[in-house]
Amino acid sequence: MNPMLQGQSARRAIPQGFLEALRERFGTAFSTSEAVRAHHGRDESPYPPMLPDGVVHAASIEDIAWVAAHCHRHKVPLIPFGAGSSLEGHVLAVQGGISLDLSGMDRILSVDAEDQCVTVQAGVRRKQLNEHLRDTGLFFPVDPGADATLGGMASTRASGTNAVRYGTMRDNVMALKVVTADGRIVHTGSRARKSSAGYDLTGVFVGSEGTLGIIAEATVRLYPQPEAVSAAVCNFPTLEAAVNSVIEIIQMGVPIARVEFMDTDAVKATNAYSKLDLAESPLLLFEFHGSPEGVKEQALAVGEITAGHGGTDFQWAEHPEDRTRLWTARHHAYFAGVQMRPGCRATTTDVCVPISQLAHCVSATAADLETASFPHTIVGHVGDGNFHVLMMIDPDKPEEWRESELINRRLVERAIAMGGTCTGEHGVGLHKMEFMQAEHGEGALDMMRALKQAFDPHHILNPGKTIPPPSEEG
Amino acid sequence: MNPMLQGQSARRAIPQGFLEALRERFGTAFSTSEAVRAHHGRDESPYPPMLPDGVVHAASIEDIAWVAAHCHRHKVPLIPFGAGSSLEGHVLAVQGGISLDLSGMDRILSVDAEDQCVTVQAGVRRKQLNEHLRDTGLFFPVDPGADATLGGMASTRASGTNAVRYGTMRDNVMALKVVTADGRIVHTGSRARKSSAGYDLTGVFVGSEGTLGIIAEATVRLYPQPEAVSAAVCNFPTLEAAVNSVIEIIQMGVPIARVEFMDTDAVKATNAYSKLDLAESPLLLFEFHGSPEGVKEQALAVGEITAGHGGTDFQWAEHPEDRTRLWTARHHAYFAGVQMRPGCRATTTDVCVPISQLAHCVSATAADLETASFPHTIVGHVGDGNFHVLMMIDPDKPEEWRESELINRRLVERAIAMGGTCTGEHGVGLHKMEFMQAEHGEGALDMMRALKQAFDPHHILNPGKTIPPPSEEG
Repeated sequence: MNPMLQGQSARRAIPQGFLEALRERFGTAFSTSEAVRAHHGRDESPYPPMLPDGVVHAASIEDIAWVAAHCHRHKVPLIPFGAGSSLEGHVLAVQGGISLDLSGMDRILSVDAEDQCVTVQAGVRRKQLNEHLRDTGLFFPVDPGADATLGGMASTRASGTNAVRYGTMRDNVMALKVVTADGRIVHTGSRARKSSAGYDLTGVFVGSEGTLGIIAEATVRLYPQPEAVSAAVCNFPTLEAAVNSVIEIIQMGVPIARVEFMDTDAVKATNAYSKLDLAESPLLLFEFHGSPEGVKEQALAVGEITAGHGGTDFQWAEHPEDRTRLWTARHHAYFAGVQMRPGCRATTTDVCVPISQLAHCVSATAADLETASFPHTIVGHVGDGNFHVLMMIDPDKPEEWRESELINRRLVERAIAMGGTCTGEHGVGLHKMEFMQAEHGEGALDMMRALKQAFDPHHILNPGKTIPPPSEEG
Repeated sequence: MNPMLQGQSARRAIPQGFLEALRERFGTAFSTSEAVRAHHGRDESPYPPMLPDGVVHAASIEDIAWVAAHCHRHKVPLIPFGAGSSLEGHVLAVQGGISLDLSGMDRILSVDAEDQCVTVQAGVRRKQLNEHLRDTGLFFPVDPGADATLGGMASTRASGTNAVRYGTMRDNVMALKVVTADGRIVHTGSRARKSSAGYDLTGVFVGSEGTLGIIAEATVRLYPQPEAVSAAVCNFPTLEAAVNSVIEIIQMGVPIARVEFMDTDAVKATNAYSKLDLAESPLLLFEFHGSPEGVKEQALAVGEITAGHGGTDFQWAEHPEDRTRLWTARHHAYFAGVQMRPGCRATTTDVCVPISQLAHCVSATAADLETASFPHTIVGHVGDGNFHVLMMIDPDKPEEWRESELINRRLVERAIAMGGTCTGEHGVGLHKMEFMQAEHGEGALDMMRALKQAFDPHHILNPGKTIPPPSEEG
């Protein structure tokens, strides 16, 4: 077994007649074929697949409710599946059971232009949504890079490049339709912009990684497409200089829409992959949204601050095609990294620290990586204090797994010691569970366990993920 | 009994020796005097006081933990108390028990200028905090009007005039130190700006009105004091014209910091109380934050939009003293209302609706009020779709209670039917409990009850509030 999966596997028995009932209810929308199960037993993480016993393609919320009630009655695990683009092993069927594929539930149910929100089925994808919104003058800003489903993004509390200005899924999900562990359909939230009417159930489900309920529909906020958009790129002599620029920009309150950091290795990989000729040193990539005057003002302020930190070649890209080229390159940083080493798998980790600690955290991590035996890059949504490390490892070499895991552990422990978190946006899945106790303490974990027990008493929903068992048992 | 309290009273028996143990532990910080209990048995709502059996003045989180463990062991109600400025009966001891006064825990524990956050004890007040921050270049924006405690504001998910730009307590509480029902101390959240590490316990406690745990400390976000601030005031021929201006401003994405609506009655009351000579018609009061260029640009955009809706006398106040005079008058709208009728009590209600429904909701409410037998005003944070109705009733006339309750019921049912919420920022307390089922449905209420049961199995924390019992029992 892969060293990353030690101790994870404990498949539950499937009661007799259970799969047959699914076949009877769903016909060809239910599959037990090896190929379909293999597709649903993995995500973008380097974990080897762990296959579910069967896959249901849901077409409606009633389908979801039926499957949940069925699984609840028979105590069979149930794992919601969207685009499969999660990064920390979220959808692996570590205890077997049913993968519930929501990607066919991809209808945009209502665009509410006046109220600046949209209600979608869980399987709607981010790019599809913005394509659909194009002529409304509105857009949905949360952008984790991957073309994830909205349900998956809500479940992992995703964010991405725009979060510094527009917030994360926590801030942008207004209401949900959720199926409970035992198959009831529940509404949370409303289309009002704020409410003090009781417990924030919407916030409970956002980020719960399919372990508390199954998100079937979501109402999310939209924003006016900015009147003017411009981008800029700036190189720095050191990564500290780049990061310190960002800290100052944030502290000055410049309302930047995006600011992304790439280390020298990430720039090199991007030049090779995206056929660009960016100067190969630590780099910041900015985007400004506002009125034409406003974006000029922001770019001017940022240009001054970066110059004060030794930034060079501050280039301002007003033309849409230049902007798109730069940002497409940034979005391909993951693929660019993977291309550095043919046949590798990338282990991607992310942490988020208070911004005062960011320069220290990034440079200590870069020092750890200096002696690594495999290619690596650092990129990050540094306006939030959030950054990622990509390590391109040979999946057949256990020593590389162990080495990358050690670097990951040092990074996460450092982030937590600095008052930060073990994951800013990727989620816990399997890979960050071991750090939950160090981050939250046993008291908070006990409350999370109580919440899980209250909402999913048979522990059928995505079991073995997110919240580790109590330490005496685990 | 006051008609508003029918069916609410069911005091629990206090076990022998229970109060004596508190006296022994806390000495003079524990009181059973009538005067102290009376002070802690009421808030700013029109409910008659319901006294606790005793009051503990907590000086430390250990004090809180001791009292919680003691109450948990003996199944005695425990009600956190801050400034007593809540509006919906939140702190009334409907089942008796202990009021835990946190106002003495008023230390600002650490200002983190670089990370733009501050950690405070629960008893720190809003004005005290901003006074303390004055020289740091930062400020805390959430402003419910009353000089509430931060713990109370977190507990009611408060917001106020700045929420349209800076969000509510939901958006601005980063981390908490909470005492659980059985007296354990738990940390939630971190100083990282975002996290995907497990369930959002911070969000669970914010808005839970002291029914899930006792907030002892809070870390909240700060923002750079804006470089430039300006205000403007504009009158309108009708309330619809005023509200439609706001809708257009929000839809255009103008980043206004505040926009407040006052109906003609509120303007008249304010002129009388604050010795102003505002034109007596529906009015909007704006505040703009940004760079000097930015606030001019915003004011220009807003001036054009309001003119398009028949707005007149658009006056732009750049001088701090003019701004302060206007905003102080708005903050005194509550007192101005109460002064309309000497000896009255004000019943204040608030709803929040999707902004597309705002004009319709406000004008239907104004129509309801036209025949009211008591003075009334409508004011609101209309940028969020949130508005308040103040009704100045004679506390000795049950028929006025009933009349105001009828108007409140029609307002709330209208807001819910429009996809809104029974309270945008005041909270549920006692007064909005009866609307929770209509707003959330039985399924969501069941999940809230499961959460309550998981976190407070003996139902000692502020019992009889926020979440109504199941309909077959209640």
